[in-house]
Amino acid sequence: MRRAALDAAAAGLSGLLVTPGPDMAWLCGYRPTAITERLTLLVLAQDCDPRLLVPALERPDAAAAPGAGAVRMSQWRDGQDPYAAAAGLLRPDGRYGVADATWALHLLGLQEALPLTTYRALSVVLPMLRAVKDAHEVERLAAAGAAADAAYRDILGVRFAGRREADVAADLARLLLEHGHSQVDFTVVGSGPNGANPHHEASDRVIEPGDMVVLDFGGLKDGYGSDTTRSVHVGEPSAEERTVHDIVRVAQEAAVRAVRPGVPCQEIDRVARAVIEEAGYGEYFIHRTGHGIGVTTHEPPYVVEGETQPLVPGMCFSVEPGIYLPGRFGVRIEDIVTCTRDGVRRLNGTPHEMAVVE
Amino acid sequence: MRRAALDAAAAGLSGLLVTPGPDMAWLCGYRPTAITERLTLLVLAQDCDPRLLVPALERPDAAAAPGAGAVRMSQWRDGQDPYAAAAGLLRPDGRYGVADATWALHLLGLQEALPLTTYRALSVVLPMLRAVKDAHEVERLAAAGAAADAAYRDILGVRFAGRREADVAADLARLLLEHGHSQVDFTVVGSGPNGANPHHEASDRVIEPGDMVVLDFGGLKDGYGSDTTRSVHVGEPSAEERTVHDIVRVAQEAAVRAVRPGVPCQEIDRVARAVIEEAGYGEYFIHRTGHGIGVTTHEPPYVVEGETQPLVPGMCFSVEPGIYLPGRFGVRIEDIVTCTRDGVRRLNGTPHEMAVVE
Repeated sequence: MRRAALDAAAAGLSGLLVTPGPDMAWLCGYRPTAITERLTLLVLAQDCDPRLLVPALERPDAAAAPGAGAVRMSQWRDGQDPYAAAAGLLRPDGRYGVADATWALHLLGLQEALPLTTYRALSVVLPMLRAVKDAHEVERLAAAGAAADAAYRDILGVRFAGRREADVAADLARLLLEHGHSQVDFTVVGSGPNGANPHHEASDRVIEPGDMVVLDFGGLKDGYGSDTTRSVHVGEPSAEERTVHDIVRVAQEAAVRAVRPGVPCQEIDRVARAVIEEAGYGEYFIHRTGHGIGVTTHEPPYVVEGETQPLVPGMCFSVEPGIYLPGRFGVRIEDIVTCTRDGVRRLNGTPHEMAVVE
Repeated sequence: MRRAALDAAAAGLSGLLVTPGPDMAWLCGYRPTAITERLTLLVLAQDCDPRLLVPALERPDAAAAPGAGAVRMSQWRDGQDPYAAAAGLLRPDGRYGVADATWALHLLGLQEALPLTTYRALSVVLPMLRAVKDAHEVERLAAAGAAADAAYRDILGVRFAGRREADVAADLARLLLEHGHSQVDFTVVGSGPNGANPHHEASDRVIEPGDMVVLDFGGLKDGYGSDTTRSVHVGEPSAEERTVHDIVRVAQEAAVRAVRPGVPCQEIDRVARAVIEEAGYGEYFIHRTGHGIGVTTHEPPYVVEGETQPLVPGMCFSVEPGIYLPGRFGVRIEDIVTCTRDGVRRLNGTPHEMAVVE
């Protein structure tokens, strides 16, 4: 919390305003049982102790949080105006960074209570607050990645043909839990034409011999995320399927090898995109190349055109180019990597070659 | 969507801005697989068709939503500015209602793209948008309530003494699912002193003979919510426990009987509070009397001091007074009720008398 307050001051902010969610969990260890319309607000500023405003009836929970001893706690009761209570903790003419997922209800309440105060989204003004992981965090992410890899190795042994995507997705979820995940965030099984929709999850479609199948899965293990994708094939692939898979594999490999300190995030995206464009499939790579990962499975830094942030040792993110041929099939390959002092370390280690499943 | 746009115009708004969440699910049937930093925005205005702006890679999912045929869809791609794309759908000097849980990231992006546009939280400016349920919705809520009641009747038969709160909570979750719920939102088991924390969920505390136990549980069945509370006792209660339970029972009954069209929400809270205050326990009733319920388990109307909204037939909400004696025990009794044309209908039907469990 002290470092975050210093970062905020260095960015020209009066302080940080954090509502329940990953930032609050990361900063003071408090995860309310539900995120509701009742305002809970952590206020960090360089010139005073951290303050935590909570609804009176949630105070016992907040007081039990790991970081509770480091905050001064105050409360508001149902029927009172929480924004007036919050205003007392802020500078009337302050400039605050506010957690991205803060409800508009709360931001508008603060804007009305303190009309001269201005706000910036935390990911815009301090995008790197959680982006650079310390060694302890990188090892947690590596452990989550190893668990996801174990789940992938196991899933290659299950039957695909004749079963629904949803059944294979359930297998993946079970395997992630068996390998130590506490929470499964997504288990994409995109077979045949469904693989051409990058955000398809899993349906009742029965997987058939001849299908390409995109498997993209992850969740949280000991509070840190996993996220990996491999594209497997039921039986022997066609020449075109091999070609498309090879292009994605080369693009992913080139992008991973481009990772080193000082390289702008967008450069990693450009490297992957250039390979796919030169192979003639540029119009079918319809998303960014990657996203950061930490206590959430999607966070800064984003590996996307326009993101000029230079890579810093300790940043952890996905590299996941893909090609999506509408109505036919899709291919995506994804590893989590971390930028090291002199290059890159992969946090997923399963082979990139297209696995043939039954 | 048409009615919402008309309501917005009647409230002096240029339109409504809705991001993924219960409002979007209710208005156009679209539930993205995840709520992320990528902007998805439904724009409703009286003078044009509904517009839905989606990230390009989520377009196939959006196009499959039940209400997709009634919206004009547009998209933005990774690397483009989603707020510039959204600005093209809005009036530069407009006054919009924005869904409560819209991320601050998105609201600040819109405020920057259109500095002259103003925003109000949907629950502030159109609190009743989803509050008045039609007959079909009331029957869904009644079915969810009946399922929760069945779970309660079953839980009375399990063993409490010698088992952990978490074990009884797991029983409750299983029973809710067995009785048709698709999702369990909360299973509070607050035994002995834990019952004095209204937001306690369930812990490893072993329930003992002589404990009062607050059971508060609910979730979604066919898209609509349940939420009911009963306070049971392991073995024979003490005289004080009986007294406190009787006070809460009388307060709850009085508040339910006060429900009829035209009565301000705060009056229901006042009726419950007056009973508890007159009995000398006012300082131990530390939360509002209730909250609306529908496609979520907490929504307007809120039954709280300061809420002058008159009740309207079709409004559905909880009535749940409680008394919390710190370090000792708590009692809460909660039913979902709906305001009818001439009074009230209860959507929970299990007895209010303190059940004695083993």
